[in-house]
Amino acid sequence: MNPDDFLRSPYHRFLRLEIVSWQTGQVEMRIPFRDELLRRSDSDWLHGGIVAALIDIAGNAAVSSVTGSSVPTIDMRVDYLRPSRGSLSATSRAVKVGRTVGVSDVEVRDSSGDLVATGRAVYAIPKPEAKAQEQA
Amino acid sequence: MNPDDFLRSPYHRFLRLEIVSWQTGQVEMRIPFRDELLRRSDSDWLHGGIVAALIDIAGNAAVSSVTGSSVPTIDMRVDYLRPSRGSLSATSRAVKVGRTVGVSDVEVRDSSGDLVATGRAVYAIPKPEAKAQEQA
Amino acid sequence: MNPDDFLRSPYHRFLRLEIVSWQTGQVEMRIPFRDELLRRSDSDWLHGGIVAALIDIAGNAAVSSVTGSSVPTIDMRVDYLRPSRGSLSATSRAVKVGRTVGVSDVEVRDSSGDLVATGRAVYAIPKPEAKAQEQA
Amino acid sequence: MNPDDFLRSPYHRFLRLEIVSWQTGQVEMRIPFRDELLRRSDSDWLHGGIVAALIDIAGNAAVSSVTGSSVPTIDMRVDYLRPSRGSLSATSRAVKVGRTVGVSDVEVRDSSGDLVATGRAVYAIPKPEAKAQEQA
Repeated sequence: MNPDDFLRSPYHRFLRLEIVSWQTGQVEMRIPFRDELLRRSDSDWLHGGIVAALIDIAGNAAVSSVTGSSVPTIDMRVDYLRPSRGSLSATSRAVKVGRTVGVSDVEVRDSSGDLVATGRAVYAIPKPEAKAQEQA
Repeated sequence: MNPDDFLRSPYHRFLRLEIVSWQTGQVEMRIPFRDELLRRSDSDWLHGGIVAALIDIAGNAAVSSVTGSSVPTIDMRVDYLRPSRGSLSATSRAVKVGRTVGVSDVEVRDSSGDLVATGRAVYAIPKPEAKAQEQA
Repeated sequence: MNPDDFLRSPYHRFLRLEIVSWQTGQVEMRIPFRDELLRRSDSDWLHGGIVAALIDIAGNAAVSSVTGSSVPTIDMRVDYLRPSRGSLSATSRAVKVGRTVGVSDVEVRDSSGDLVATGRAVYAIPKPEAKAQEQA
Repeated sequence: MNPDDFLRSPYHRFLRLEIVSWQTGQVEMRIPFRDELLRRSDSDWLHGGIVAALIDIAGNAAVSSVTGSSVPTIDMRVDYLRPSRGSLSATSRAVKVGRTVGVSDVEVRDSSGDLVATGRAVYAIPKPEAKAQEQA
């Protein structure tokens, strides 16, 4: 995916995902607050599933900013450090982009600026022939 | 959370989350297809962030069905085994409910019936005093 | 690796690793007790690093029993469910063996027969050319 | 555990574990090369189980340097970035030390100085009464 593809995804549109910066191997993204992201109706905590989605998306972007192709997620770990409120922003960094897999590290902060979660995810690097077909 | 709380969550309502069965330590849930869950506009693959959210939610339910109280997620791992299409259903099982943490195992299948992802998550068990306050 | 390679590994020899059963996609292994595996000198709890090693090794074996070639570990998650004592045995199952990665699920029990830890690990599947070279 | 306890552990003695620095919330450790740590007899790659053990131990140390008490591992994730050779050193940092759990981030380098693996682990923080008993 490239930045335009990211913003055309139906789920990303629901999340109102914004790309704050997009450099090779390092990407920053943001999800503005909306009521549908809340965990409970009687609390202002965001749902953990939104945090997890942002980690997957930002980690994917950091690796695909290097490969130039879409990279399916193989697995992901999320550590929730504290409850999050308001808007979320993620900075993600490609730790490794090898022949088989890419690895990303992601940090998520909420409106308070506090680190609310960290993530690590592994993505499959398409094999050369697959890349060629995708570009055809 | 109890089953009613689960369905009142704003994000769960967006997901149109359904509880298929709710037994102590074992829960089954379903997310019916809707366009906003798609990963790309030109493909019928569901977004990985939806799969991750379902794993978090279903794992949480399995542990809180035992504790009777809400259990914040500490961390989660998701393994994506193949692309998913259509509606998603998750079966989740509490592997352990200790004094400090609970652990869940989750399997996710899509409309084809294939196993599309597995998850494992750890939840904080509220300390007795905290439980008492929550119920007050 | 094949069963013979497993037993020739210097670290496996230190662990006195035993292969209990080796079927395609499903492997059972055992580490007998020895003093050097203890976590503390004043306790009979085994060290968590031994449990993690057994998960990596048994998960690797389940995938390589399918591929017939050695499969480097990409990542691993270990959940420690309770303290372990005595000898350890692991049963491992290949959940997926794809073109890029293989995924294993591992359960570890100790002398009491209790489930003491679970693990999930992802392994790189060598590309065809790499396999050919390795066999040459 | 305190630094002395770390070095009295039978498994740490097998690993010839050295504490390079021990500050509150940040610890550096080292495992010098020995033949028993090798993955295969015909290669100089270290066994992944040693890397995992070092991550568990160093992450544990960073959290227990803050709590002053022993902290059982709840779960751990290891990402293997490249093969490792020679001696291993780990720097670990407590990302969070809360009332229920502590979280560590660990980086492992080998003799070449390259980052060979990263780890993230979660540890249980003893409840006040448990701490009091332990110190009694």
